[in-house]
Amino acid sequence: MAIDFRRSWSDEDLELYRDNVVRFIETEVLPHDEEARKRGHVGHEVWRKAGALGLLCADIPEEYGGAGGDFRHEAVFYEEMSRRALTGMATSVHSIVAHYFLNHGTEAQKRHYLPRMARGEMVGAIAMTEPGAGSDLQGVRTRAEKKDGGYVVNGSKTFITNGFLAGVVLVVCKTDPTQGAKGTSILIVETEGCEGFRVGRVLDKIGMKAQDTSELFFDDVRVSADALLGGVEGQGFFQLMSDLPYERTIIGLSALATMEGAYQATLDYVRDRKAFGKPVAEFQNTKFKLAEIATQIKVGRAFIDRCIEDLVAGRLDTATASMAKLWGSEAQGRVIDECLQLFGGYGFMNEYMVARMYADARVQRIYGGTNEIMKEVIARAL
Amino acid sequence: MAIDFRRSWSDEDLELYRDNVVRFIETEVLPHDEEARKRGHVGHEVWRKAGALGLLCADIPEEYGGAGGDFRHEAVFYEEMSRRALTGMATSVHSIVAHYFLNHGTEAQKRHYLPRMARGEMVGAIAMTEPGAGSDLQGVRTRAEKKDGGYVVNGSKTFITNGFLAGVVLVVCKTDPTQGAKGTSILIVETEGCEGFRVGRVLDKIGMKAQDTSELFFDDVRVSADALLGGVEGQGFFQLMSDLPYERTIIGLSALATMEGAYQATLDYVRDRKAFGKPVAEFQNTKFKLAEIATQIKVGRAFIDRCIEDLVAGRLDTATASMAKLWGSEAQGRVIDECLQLFGGYGFMNEYMVARMYADARVQRIYGGTNEIMKEVIARAL
Amino acid sequence: MAIDFRRSWSDEDLELYRDNVVRFIETEVLPHDEEARKRGHVGHEVWRKAGALGLLCADIPEEYGGAGGDFRHEAVFYEEMSRRALTGMATSVHSIVAHYFLNHGTEAQKRHYLPRMARGEMVGAIAMTEPGAGSDLQGVRTRAEKKDGGYVVNGSKTFITNGFLAGVVLVVCKTDPTQGAKGTSILIVETEGCEGFRVGRVLDKIGMKAQDTSELFFDDVRVSADALLGGVEGQGFFQLMSDLPYERTIIGLSALATMEGAYQATLDYVRDRKAFGKPVAEFQNTKFKLAEIATQIKVGRAFIDRCIEDLVAGRLDTATASMAKLWGSEAQGRVIDECLQLFGGYGFMNEYMVARMYADARVQRIYGGTNEIMKEVIARAL
Amino acid sequence: MAIDFRRSWSDEDLELYRDNVVRFIETEVLPHDEEARKRGHVGHEVWRKAGALGLLCADIPEEYGGAGGDFRHEAVFYEEMSRRALTGMATSVHSIVAHYFLNHGTEAQKRHYLPRMARGEMVGAIAMTEPGAGSDLQGVRTRAEKKDGGYVVNGSKTFITNGFLAGVVLVVCKTDPTQGAKGTSILIVETEGCEGFRVGRVLDKIGMKAQDTSELFFDDVRVSADALLGGVEGQGFFQLMSDLPYERTIIGLSALATMEGAYQATLDYVRDRKAFGKPVAEFQNTKFKLAEIATQIKVGRAFIDRCIEDLVAGRLDTATASMAKLWGSEAQGRVIDECLQLFGGYGFMNEYMVARMYADARVQRIYGGTNEIMKEVIARAL
Repeated sequence: MAIDFRRSWSDEDLELYRDNVVRFIETEVLPHDEEARKRGHVGHEVWRKAGALGLLCADIPEEYGGAGGDFRHEAVFYEEMSRRALTGMATSVHSIVAHYFLNHGTEAQKRHYLPRMARGEMVGAIAMTEPGAGSDLQGVRTRAEKKDGGYVVNGSKTFITNGFLAGVVLVVCKTDPTQGAKGTSILIVETEGCEGFRVGRVLDKIGMKAQDTSELFFDDVRVSADALLGGVEGQGFFQLMSDLPYERTIIGLSALATMEGAYQATLDYVRDRKAFGKPVAEFQNTKFKLAEIATQIKVGRAFIDRCIEDLVAGRLDTATASMAKLWGSEAQGRVIDECLQLFGGYGFMNEYMVARMYADARVQRIYGGTNEIMKEVIARAL
Repeated sequence: MAIDFRRSWSDEDLELYRDNVVRFIETEVLPHDEEARKRGHVGHEVWRKAGALGLLCADIPEEYGGAGGDFRHEAVFYEEMSRRALTGMATSVHSIVAHYFLNHGTEAQKRHYLPRMARGEMVGAIAMTEPGAGSDLQGVRTRAEKKDGGYVVNGSKTFITNGFLAGVVLVVCKTDPTQGAKGTSILIVETEGCEGFRVGRVLDKIGMKAQDTSELFFDDVRVSADALLGGVEGQGFFQLMSDLPYERTIIGLSALATMEGAYQATLDYVRDRKAFGKPVAEFQNTKFKLAEIATQIKVGRAFIDRCIEDLVAGRLDTATASMAKLWGSEAQGRVIDECLQLFGGYGFMNEYMVARMYADARVQRIYGGTNEIMKEVIARAL
Repeated sequence: MAIDFRRSWSDEDLELYRDNVVRFIETEVLPHDEEARKRGHVGHEVWRKAGALGLLCADIPEEYGGAGGDFRHEAVFYEEMSRRALTGMATSVHSIVAHYFLNHGTEAQKRHYLPRMARGEMVGAIAMTEPGAGSDLQGVRTRAEKKDGGYVVNGSKTFITNGFLAGVVLVVCKTDPTQGAKGTSILIVETEGCEGFRVGRVLDKIGMKAQDTSELFFDDVRVSADALLGGVEGQGFFQLMSDLPYERTIIGLSALATMEGAYQATLDYVRDRKAFGKPVAEFQNTKFKLAEIATQIKVGRAFIDRCIEDLVAGRLDTATASMAKLWGSEAQGRVIDECLQLFGGYGFMNEYMVARMYADARVQRIYGGTNEIMKEVIARAL
Repeated sequence: MAIDFRRSWSDEDLELYRDNVVRFIETEVLPHDEEARKRGHVGHEVWRKAGALGLLCADIPEEYGGAGGDFRHEAVFYEEMSRRALTGMATSVHSIVAHYFLNHGTEAQKRHYLPRMARGEMVGAIAMTEPGAGSDLQGVRTRAEKKDGGYVVNGSKTFITNGFLAGVVLVVCKTDPTQGAKGTSILIVETEGCEGFRVGRVLDKIGMKAQDTSELFFDDVRVSADALLGGVEGQGFFQLMSDLPYERTIIGLSALATMEGAYQATLDYVRDRKAFGKPVAEFQNTKFKLAEIATQIKVGRAFIDRCIEDLVAGRLDTATASMAKLWGSEAQGRVIDECLQLFGGYGFMNEYMVARMYADARVQRIYGGTNEIMKEVIARAL
């Protein structure tokens, strides 16, 4: 009897959709991953192909060029990428940016950006973190000054996912530095031919090698008044806060799917590999580790599934989503570490998926709000 | 905003039922707990009262004297007892015994025992473990020899929950010692006036002080042929195995409910109690611990709820139920330990509920099959 | 080859001394432990016997009636008691009180109390914690008012080790409530025939059943001016702080010795006990757990040994001693828990030493300054 | 007051020696590390420089060209490299190879190889692990056949530290495949101009980027009879076993020194870095984490110091050394992980030392015998 990791929220249609997603990933992403990891980004082509197949912006309404699905379609994509350790193409951030447009943008902004994003012509990024500021939004120093009916942006950002490939960047900045949260706004910057905008280094990270995490510099970048997300100043903080359940569920889910992928690969490995004359799978230590891992995954699956259902139903609160991020990323850290150990020396070699998963996993406890921030958020809700 | 620990399987009727359960517990169990803990058992009266109120055998069909509910009714009872650290009255074992009758007994056995159990006249116990045999069923040495158309039972049992109060004991014994599992049968022994049957000491345990865990001795105990559960020899092992999902879900659920109770009590305590001039609740360490605890509980709630739904639907497999037992009891150990620490010195005093919960919790990783056995069972299913 | 847990600080003389200690313990303490656990204290006789054999106040100079040894002699005593789970006779607190006299007392105080304590005629206790005040010294509300050339003491204390048997109690109180630490003094109260002094309940604890942890009440208790420890007011806080390395090393050492005792008992048990047809010791899980336990013990032994050597040499700082308390009590918690699990159901029975060790161990992370306080102290020193 | 991490085994001379080591490392190793990490090896020059300064083979007698020191000199070198995350130049393996020559080699072998190794002309490697064989020595398939008075070697090896730069490789092979351990011998292969010998890829690892871990291939490699280490066949297994305390102490020590370095860097960082308006160092969570880390380091320092003293005194047993490897590498994993988290996003960037330490650390639990092997070894000794 196999242990059943089925999802409570899936159905036949979604499983057909999953088949498409898997086909795309196995044809267009997986074969180019090693190359992307060397280069530091996945390139534009794979984004356009995903767009052409209708796999981007799956939960954006059709009228804005999206696929008209819901978060479950997004979930399928994250699951299939994560379980294969494919972390280069950050469609998560892309979708989050799309949701900022959808939930907070003006009609004109939605009509302009969403179709381009859905087609993969414009990759989305969100520029929040600044050097030395981390999870602390209060510390934003990037400045947008009103001038000639538009804005002039100055500042620098770091750790920006999709930073190198981004066609559109949502820049969190101060429109009124005399105020705290209320002086914060989000400006839309198109990178193509944008004077004063510069992408710094693709950062040299422990893992996530194919993901173009970058520094961005803004030197007197001029944008029109239309570039203000939602068209009203001082909404930045509120806009950032309102999508947290969506963002944190993605991290929790991708953590879980990574564990599921690692677990399966490990199970295959220990059955195949022999030590001291018998399959590694037959040692009691191996059996106990696998049982503990499978238990964590199954417990987590029930929780993440419920988060997904609640998110789709529009009733997932930020504290619970923060738990998904916290628990997911912590469990991922433990589980991948245990899996790796069962591979022995091969576990340290990037040739093996579990090694890449290990290197990638470490940042999950940090980005999207560090796990310390998650605990603060949860504690405040108790 | 409070964190919502609602159960996915509950409904309005069940919550009304819960009100009844709570009333019974707060009137009839809680006020006598300290006394029961000193005495080592809860006495017969509370069982009869529970029976009179229809709270025993809640998931046994009405035709056999039960309440005609399902496992969710049982769940309500376990939750409300566990969250108050009331572990003396082991209705779990009572219900498990009732299920043995229901699922494996002859019609006559059902008609005789189930109504008496439902009324609380006969407390049920199951005598499996023997001195030195632990979770290892193969090592059963208690012998039932055929004689004069009945059986003569000889042997001794230990760690028997409800052992002192039991009116009916299901005795796991060997009817054919030349065979292993296939030589094992379950005999029904009524303790009232039973010659050769003797209850040994109520065992002196770390915790579970109000629970009458006892040794039982069988010296030439004579029972009729009708006392064979199900009427066919050699079915004992199979009968024991078939109810494991039911038994293990109960342990997982009671673990979770205990955590929920401890969490709530701790939250109240740290808000009220001051140290170094401010409420303990305001220290970052306290906040982080509570956030971690709440996260574990919420993750666990999703998993246990799914187990309960699957159990009610008749599709819960043994491996998943073993995960509920494993994960639940491990999490309970960690969580209660953390809660206790937040009480400081008071956490070590039995006057405080968290102290009793701590002492009680330790056996959850051991009984009902040790957690090492759970891992073996889970690993075999992978 | 056996693993060598030898102590770096011991020598032939100390091992001869150890033989005496073991003889005393095995003759006078161990046989009466069960009885003492039921009664809630060890009684006065065993203290006098220990005194008569020169085993109390081993590190107090001979001129004050002590044995003229050093901390290593004390260490031997703590080790041999702890490894046998004998926690009723708190010679640790007795010795700490003796050290308060030795280090801070007037010559008259030393000459009066130390010989009586060394003979076991007067058991020593220190009354610091108050209901609701915990590890927080600032919160002391017990008041000593100057009156008629002496003091009148009013207040209550809780969690007082040796509280029931104590002949002399060092009472931490406020002589000047308008000041914080500087208003704190220690008064010496002899309990025999002391009007207004009352011992409350011997507290009902999870473990440490033979230790007479009590509440103490002071209602207009009158003491003379000579009862002020050291003869100068306002020194209480300083006096309490200066002996912390001594106190915390004791907790760390007793934690270690308990682990050593539990480890040995577990090793014996798993070799003897069979499951599924082979000794429990031969399962890989058992081997791995024992290897992890032995490793923690051996690592800890090196550290605690160094602390003892530094303490004897007078160079052990408070932060390092706090690490001994922190690390020791945390490791003890983990190790005893693992050991217990290897005993299966027997581990939950107080008949087994490991069960008593488990119940006792929990308070080690709390008393003597909670482990949270230890972390604060250590962090301040970094 | 600072916490004192002093070494019990050091003295003034050794601290002078340490100054030399530090000067060398900061001048010759540290500035070239980034380049070495990109290239996958440190190059030959740094080895020759170290040799010229007398820093290689520090514990080899002067008559064989060594520095005539003892393990404490080696320890100084490992400490200073490890605390700076400099893991490219594996002088540990070099020294282990030198010890194989010293302890098992013929006089001619010692005279030939040791001076060359001490001068850094010949880097040493030991080729034990084979693809798919891991920590399991029994599975060696590399074959040395006797032919024309010499040997012909065929086989392949993997995970060979110093594999790319090695001038001399000790090849573990079967001289008599009909026997197990007794058919195993070690052959000395000089790589310069060696026909049939080939270095495969420098392996792409999670970390240890500057270390030339390689695959080695032997295709009809011919060596003379003099190439047999010690001159007697069948001694390979015994030779490998006898140096285990030396090898495992090195891993334990380097783990500890890495933690010390990470701790210091983290302390500096959290004092400097602000979040939510105050230094990260002032959050209670930070303080508690640092206190826990410092405690683990200080406990570990006492243990590793004792191992070093025992090793120098020739009385360190294999089981205790295995504990040093086990405990050290596990603690390193935990500690570096905690340190990294305190750096937030910067902890994931290779620019920061803690990131490189994290990536490097993972293999410490695997190589030199996996930690599972350590547990087996320790358990066998109990």
